[in-house]
Amino acid sequence: MFQGFSRSSHLPARTGELVTAHGAVRTPAFVAVATRASVKGVEPGVLASLGLELLIANSYHLHLRPGEDVIAALGGLHGFSGWHGPTMTDSGGFQVFSLGAGKVHGVGKVASIFPGEEPAPRPVGGASLVRLSEDGAWFRSVVDGSEHTFTPESVILTERKLGADIILPLDECTSPIHDHAYTRAAMARTHRWARRARGAFHLLANDPAFPNPDQELFGIVQGGAYEDLRRESARVIADMGFDGFAIGGSLGRSKDDMWRVLDWTVPALPPEKPRHLLGIGELEDMFAAVARGVDTFDCAAPTRMARNGSVFLRDAPRHRIHLRNAAFRTDERPIDPACDCPTCSAHSRAYLQHLCRSGELAYYRLATIHNLRFLVRLLDDIRTAIANDRFEALAAEWGFPLP
Amino acid sequence: MFQGFSRSSHLPARTGELVTAHGAVRTPAFVAVATRASVKGVEPGVLASLGLELLIANSYHLHLRPGEDVIAALGGLHGFSGWHGPTMTDSGGFQVFSLGAGKVHGVGKVASIFPGEEPAPRPVGGASLVRLSEDGAWFRSVVDGSEHTFTPESVILTERKLGADIILPLDECTSPIHDHAYTRAAMARTHRWARRARGAFHLLANDPAFPNPDQELFGIVQGGAYEDLRRESARVIADMGFDGFAIGGSLGRSKDDMWRVLDWTVPALPPEKPRHLLGIGELEDMFAAVARGVDTFDCAAPTRMARNGSVFLRDAPRHRIHLRNAAFRTDERPIDPACDCPTCSAHSRAYLQHLCRSGELAYYRLATIHNLRFLVRLLDDIRTAIANDRFEALAAEWGFPLP
Repeated sequence: MFQGFSRSSHLPARTGELVTAHGAVRTPAFVAVATRASVKGVEPGVLASLGLELLIANSYHLHLRPGEDVIAALGGLHGFSGWHGPTMTDSGGFQVFSLGAGKVHGVGKVASIFPGEEPAPRPVGGASLVRLSEDGAWFRSVVDGSEHTFTPESVILTERKLGADIILPLDECTSPIHDHAYTRAAMARTHRWARRARGAFHLLANDPAFPNPDQELFGIVQGGAYEDLRRESARVIADMGFDGFAIGGSLGRSKDDMWRVLDWTVPALPPEKPRHLLGIGELEDMFAAVARGVDTFDCAAPTRMARNGSVFLRDAPRHRIHLRNAAFRTDERPIDPACDCPTCSAHSRAYLQHLCRSGELAYYRLATIHNLRFLVRLLDDIRTAIANDRFEALAAEWGFPLP
Repeated sequence: MFQGFSRSSHLPARTGELVTAHGAVRTPAFVAVATRASVKGVEPGVLASLGLELLIANSYHLHLRPGEDVIAALGGLHGFSGWHGPTMTDSGGFQVFSLGAGKVHGVGKVASIFPGEEPAPRPVGGASLVRLSEDGAWFRSVVDGSEHTFTPESVILTERKLGADIILPLDECTSPIHDHAYTRAAMARTHRWARRARGAFHLLANDPAFPNPDQELFGIVQGGAYEDLRRESARVIADMGFDGFAIGGSLGRSKDDMWRVLDWTVPALPPEKPRHLLGIGELEDMFAAVARGVDTFDCAAPTRMARNGSVFLRDAPRHRIHLRNAAFRTDERPIDPACDCPTCSAHSRAYLQHLCRSGELAYYRLATIHNLRFLVRLLDDIRTAIANDRFEALAAEWGFPLP
């Protein structure tokens, strides 16, 4: 359930609250990625203390290991992981893409992330591990090579057993290389799958065997970077009456493409429902998405960056420093003297550099905690700015002027 | 400084307190291994909360990276790491061994750990990365291949800069394969190095440039598994007037050998000084060492075991369970329902199995925390048992009857 609070006067940016069976999420919100029911390197107990309010886990990975029946037996994702706050599960559609067309085309969701740069398709990724049909997706497990079939119905059953508060239906995430005809056909099939998923969701609604009776099902908008398809998909999915919406699939070949996709999609979605943007990557994207009326977005990049040595600092080029940099060898300062995270409260850049260079396990947790806390504080500032109708000014202060 | 409290009536087992510039350590104590100024997977802040009172870091590794000057600039190991409690540094003698004779002989400190089993030397370890001379040890860095020379004096200078409360002199750790003649010559050289280290230690005693003016220097007893050499080394090192003693080097080819080494060594050491046993491995060894009057011992095995999936549980075969075992797939219980550690308070065996099987980074920390807390509680019980003169009974209850 979504409750809107305030809105920028010149932009669709808005604040609100996403109310779930496991608590409320103040929006806009950053959603931490816990693919295998764990944010990499950080135990669940500390996440709430950092101010995180929503995690997204992955049905595909959890189906393969440990299996949804194991998790259901432990009380669903909340009982299993010890994270007791709001939770989403993605459907596996993105994995169908990345093991299939994404692998064959050698691309991610955005073919090229630099605005204006020509796309450079690298169709060298090898053979698809996925076969798609009207029924669903057949694939080989990356864990043990076993064969699996996902249908829209089987994914809902899996997600009912996982028990996240917000679940997503199986979709086909097309590649930025796919042409209009393929993207249109995939979109139409994704719409048919969405209807089947809704049917299964309601069929399984009142079964006391599932750990969370108060789940919500969001619909996923597809259509690639094609204006007519995005507008059509948003309209069709909106008409199906989901509890909220996710924007998935290919976001084009540049940041401009990505932002146009949002410009076409968001206005076609009902304003009283929440909107989630699946899998973006950078601070700039967060500002751009919030500006266009996105309420929540998940992103694995900040935690992956942290593990690689790159940590957020507002007053640094690109808002980050690299801890392996020799300049920090004897730097007694925390990553960010203005940060209140446990890492900055206790450790110097010099010690973190040492742990990072030595590959010490403690490093990953300490750096990840900082980057997560940085984003929580940034989103606090973003919500306050929207409430005070100065979001455009905040974006400009961060060096991300809005169009 | 060591203060003895109580002693078993029939055994040399004793309780006491090791007082350092950074606090007191109740003995007998388990010393957690923080080779590179970090206990693998656990940030310093949580260690004290687990009840750990003493860490041991390694001069060899810290000299190579980040270098003692970096650590001195950050206020020594305490300021650098954020661990503010008592700390030891080992000298690098064991690394000289493991990159030299240990590598060539294909052995560890104990050639074979199973009592009664014939030793099986595996002299297949390749060429030595170390050359020893009267002056010291020349070796190639495992980090970058650079060449380094450690002398007894240079190691003391390194350890003065690192600033641990208890430091150890450079020694030569012989292999269980070395014969009596080699072991005797190495021991004699280690004694000469010990004298030079003591000289350097006192020469550098009052330099305000070093982070910890209240360091203590322990002497290391060598002599392999040869009775005459161990007795001689203990007497010679004891006579040099160190602040305490460490028992190092080869402990023979079986547990019986190891325990005989302690039987020969400990009685020759002055009772008013603390005794540390370097690098043992198992619960049985801890009971055996404490029974023979050892006050502190370090051991990397419990944290390494945890990372491999093996966690302590008193009422299990060999006092441990393996979390990868299929029996725990849906086991809702914590590792040990009687344990008060943060891991057992929050997580099931099923979730930990999932994290372990998935190689999730959070796993390593959670399992390590449990094993560390288990040892802290075991040592609490051991101290209480000694104080009540029932240590033999406690050892028998644990299945480790004393000779």
